[in-house]
Amino acid sequence: MPGTTRLIPLGGLGEVGKNMTVVECDDGLVVVDAGLSFPRDEHLGVDLVLPDFTYLREHRGEIRAVVLTHGHEDHVGALPYLLREVDVPQVWATRLTLGLVKSKLDEHGLLRAAELVEIEPEAGPAQVGPYRVEFVRMAHSIPDAVAVAFETPGGRVVLTGDYKIDHTPVDGFRTDLGKLAELGNRGVDLLLGDSTNAERPGVTESERTVGEVFRHLIPQREGRVLIASFASNVHRVQQAIDVALGTGRKVCLIGRSLRKNVNIGRNLGYVDVPDDLLVRPDELEGLRPEETMILCTGSQGEPMSALTRMAYHDHPHVSIEPSDTVIISAKPVPGNELRVHDTINRLAKSGAEVLHQEIAPVHVSGHGNAEEIRTILALLRPRNVMPVHGEFRMLAAQRRLALDSGVPSERIVLAENGTVVELAGGVARIADQLDTGSTFVDGLGVGDVRDVALRDRRHLSEDGVLIVVVTMGGRNGRELGAPEVIARGFGDSGPLLEEARQETERTLADCLAQDVSELKLLQEHIHDNVGQLIADRTGRRPMILPVVVEV
Amino acid sequence: MPGTTRLIPLGGLGEVGKNMTVVECDDGLVVVDAGLSFPRDEHLGVDLVLPDFTYLREHRGEIRAVVLTHGHEDHVGALPYLLREVDVPQVWATRLTLGLVKSKLDEHGLLRAAELVEIEPEAGPAQVGPYRVEFVRMAHSIPDAVAVAFETPGGRVVLTGDYKIDHTPVDGFRTDLGKLAELGNRGVDLLLGDSTNAERPGVTESERTVGEVFRHLIPQREGRVLIASFASNVHRVQQAIDVALGTGRKVCLIGRSLRKNVNIGRNLGYVDVPDDLLVRPDELEGLRPEETMILCTGSQGEPMSALTRMAYHDHPHVSIEPSDTVIISAKPVPGNELRVHDTINRLAKSGAEVLHQEIAPVHVSGHGNAEEIRTILALLRPRNVMPVHGEFRMLAAQRRLALDSGVPSERIVLAENGTVVELAGGVARIADQLDTGSTFVDGLGVGDVRDVALRDRRHLSEDGVLIVVVTMGGRNGRELGAPEVIARGFGDSGPLLEEARQETERTLADCLAQDVSELKLLQEHIHDNVGQLIADRTGRRPMILPVVVEV
Repeated sequence: MPGTTRLIPLGGLGEVGKNMTVVECDDGLVVVDAGLSFPRDEHLGVDLVLPDFTYLREHRGEIRAVVLTHGHEDHVGALPYLLREVDVPQVWATRLTLGLVKSKLDEHGLLRAAELVEIEPEAGPAQVGPYRVEFVRMAHSIPDAVAVAFETPGGRVVLTGDYKIDHTPVDGFRTDLGKLAELGNRGVDLLLGDSTNAERPGVTESERTVGEVFRHLIPQREGRVLIASFASNVHRVQQAIDVALGTGRKVCLIGRSLRKNVNIGRNLGYVDVPDDLLVRPDELEGLRPEETMILCTGSQGEPMSALTRMAYHDHPHVSIEPSDTVIISAKPVPGNELRVHDTINRLAKSGAEVLHQEIAPVHVSGHGNAEEIRTILALLRPRNVMPVHGEFRMLAAQRRLALDSGVPSERIVLAENGTVVELAGGVARIADQLDTGSTFVDGLGVGDVRDVALRDRRHLSEDGVLIVVVTMGGRNGRELGAPEVIARGFGDSGPLLEEARQETERTLADCLAQDVSELKLLQEHIHDNVGQLIADRTGRRPMILPVVVEV
Repeated sequence: MPGTTRLIPLGGLGEVGKNMTVVECDDGLVVVDAGLSFPRDEHLGVDLVLPDFTYLREHRGEIRAVVLTHGHEDHVGALPYLLREVDVPQVWATRLTLGLVKSKLDEHGLLRAAELVEIEPEAGPAQVGPYRVEFVRMAHSIPDAVAVAFETPGGRVVLTGDYKIDHTPVDGFRTDLGKLAELGNRGVDLLLGDSTNAERPGVTESERTVGEVFRHLIPQREGRVLIASFASNVHRVQQAIDVALGTGRKVCLIGRSLRKNVNIGRNLGYVDVPDDLLVRPDELEGLRPEETMILCTGSQGEPMSALTRMAYHDHPHVSIEPSDTVIISAKPVPGNELRVHDTINRLAKSGAEVLHQEIAPVHVSGHGNAEEIRTILALLRPRNVMPVHGEFRMLAAQRRLALDSGVPSERIVLAENGTVVELAGGVARIADQLDTGSTFVDGLGVGDVRDVALRDRRHLSEDGVLIVVVTMGGRNGRELGAPEVIARGFGDSGPLLEEARQETERTLADCLAQDVSELKLLQEHIHDNVGQLIADRTGRRPMILPVVVEV
């Protein structure tokens, strides 16, 4: 219908993660963000969760572009999987986001799958597919984030992406309130605003405050300082590096994703590190503790990460010592709390002092709190509001903020993933609800990223599923009885299942011989080894669900 | 050895929960606290976790008494199980704690298993087994908490129990700093101090502040107000009731444990509620929303609790409505975060406004922060310190506070569960390490509490284990393929396993027919029904491990 725009969130509503929104009119559609999320514990055997691409597959001929608001995994992580499924003529992103995405596409062998177009927020409007589009700089916990304003047949639509109003950002690039005000003055018909921290009163502290805390804490320390943070938080890393420079410490980067992000950041000018400040892990031994700063991954207590392995004395180069200070400069993603606590306890057992966000101001959020959202609402004065990015409670909180700002209740759309919202004549309303789900990615941990299995949540793939049940004696880790392998949708392959059973026994014996008895690690090893065996024998990739029961 | 005392923590070290400490000399032993903890998600099929009673069984003839510091489950919950295993001549506790414990023992048919002796903190010293003992009032999130000072052959030993230094407690019973100072002046040889909040800087806010928040929030509300808190937090309940009185709302108590605790509290004079303030759930319909306050259980998002059922519109009397305000006046125990978030989202979906501790000051901790622990250390000036009650990171934090207070490093004992600490000649040192574990309680959810199965973590009971594997279609909850039942240590009972399989199918069909598709609920129903079937057929109680895999 002319004069109508359809907004369809395919992810990120009712959840934190896998953000993706379709902005569609009769002349084609543009996808804003292509994020992934991480599975909950009940999703055994799943590595990643993607949005449901069904709608995009069904409208493959109409996709004009993907616009990425910033480089976090929950906004760009699904891009390679999307590009594999449908043709996307252009991918638009700012410079750092493009740098991160290029590296990701390269790993997947997809570097030439789409034209990559750089967003220049300070330049004028651009034509993206059927829309005239303006980009607005937004401060966030990764540099180079933008909001996107679309001129569409149904009206002007603004998607904020993730943001905070950081008046003193580390790189000096503030949320561009002037441009937002200008958009508001011209008239915004529909705002899709980040809801993550809408429940939280007040304002989020500036990223700069973490640097101040580092500058306060680190000079007092006489031993090594280790800082774990999100690999993509380039400003956090920069602030740590600055303190290292000022206090005569060399910096060692440990963890693949951290090294990758810092490299990309340096190459593009987002991270400033003198070459002679950096040392390799094998050079650490030659340094005195008070000359050492280690930046590492593992702030979420991930079982195979650098920090976890150091905590468990399982890292080839670094083992935690009593004089160490470990700063966990991140907040556990909901569901990761116990893992992070386990890591902290293990670090404390090794004698280290551990500073984490529960007890010291070593982390700030990248999302604006209620008062910041109120400011955005006041600047944009949208006719209609559709809260996005967040669990339902967060969307409901932004709804209340919008009501307070004067948006009438009937102009606020609480949508879910798959809701079709039509914007026409200055009014947004729910027109339809698609039957959407999620797509699970089950990659062999050790395998090639190009060679993972994608499964629709609603259907088992034809490859079937193997459930491997192992019961273990809790205290001494002695295995009780033989493992059992149950197949579903896998045919009657008795000998192969017996082989899988033996592979499981072998894997367990290997793990126990190396003193690996943590349940998650055992599950991961069984998953990878049995998966590899089946792939080798049959070329198929059943979902492997290792169930390790401690009795 | 004369002049020697042995302290043996059997629970509560390296964990939050199941606190239990043995205070032993040649003339017998006294057990301080007998707590339980709740299982982590990886302990499938376990309802409760108890301390390992092996040491107490081996020294059954030497047990003189159990002293309970307060009535929380992590300090008294294992008492019935302990009394069933060994003879305990006396159980000492304050009046409210005794009231709560009596009701618990009554349920287990153990009311006459031990002499129950009331602690009167204001009275002089008492003789408890071989020791002269003094009790000191401590403020906590349940009334009538005490610290315990033992005169032992090895020296004076003070166990704080759980405490905060609340200068304005709701009941006026402050932590008795004067008596603590007097003990300190007389000389304390060993302090076993609560470490729960040792990492947190500053002081914990007074319980009274929550009442102030209630008084601020509730009069503004035009709809119903629901408050979920821990059932045992009598002061929290009293403060809510006081606001109800002041604002013309009737109070309805929903949830078995809450009604029980309030009844006991009223009978003993700890809770003050006019009879005509209370209404039954079936009377709610006759009240206007602004006349209604509902106090309920479920602050941890427990699947079968009142609040969860109201949130899912599955409660016989109350269903959440858009004008409701729900206050979750508690903090999620680590590991429960996702459940609590799910509940909040569900409440928000029903249109309610939800106030929880992440976004509003509707909860305070019952444990003292670092500055309060420093105060206790300054008052007692102990020669030796052994941090108790907490994960390792918390014990390590109290160690640092003790160091700051002037206790030398070699006089601070970082023990684990099962560590034997000897106190002699003013010096505490680690003498031995017992091989202790945990005991898992696997009660049929619907069964009689006298009839549960206890299993040592280190050994499967002879009853064996049944693993029930179910794969479900995620979105529509359609079951894929037949459930599978795997037996371990259960003999070759093919027909019974087939029956169990059918029972599982029946259970699933029933659940889905009633639209119950939450994984945890399905697991619980399978656990209970299959367990009941096996118990009926064989009189045995295998551990039932339902594994529901969503694919």
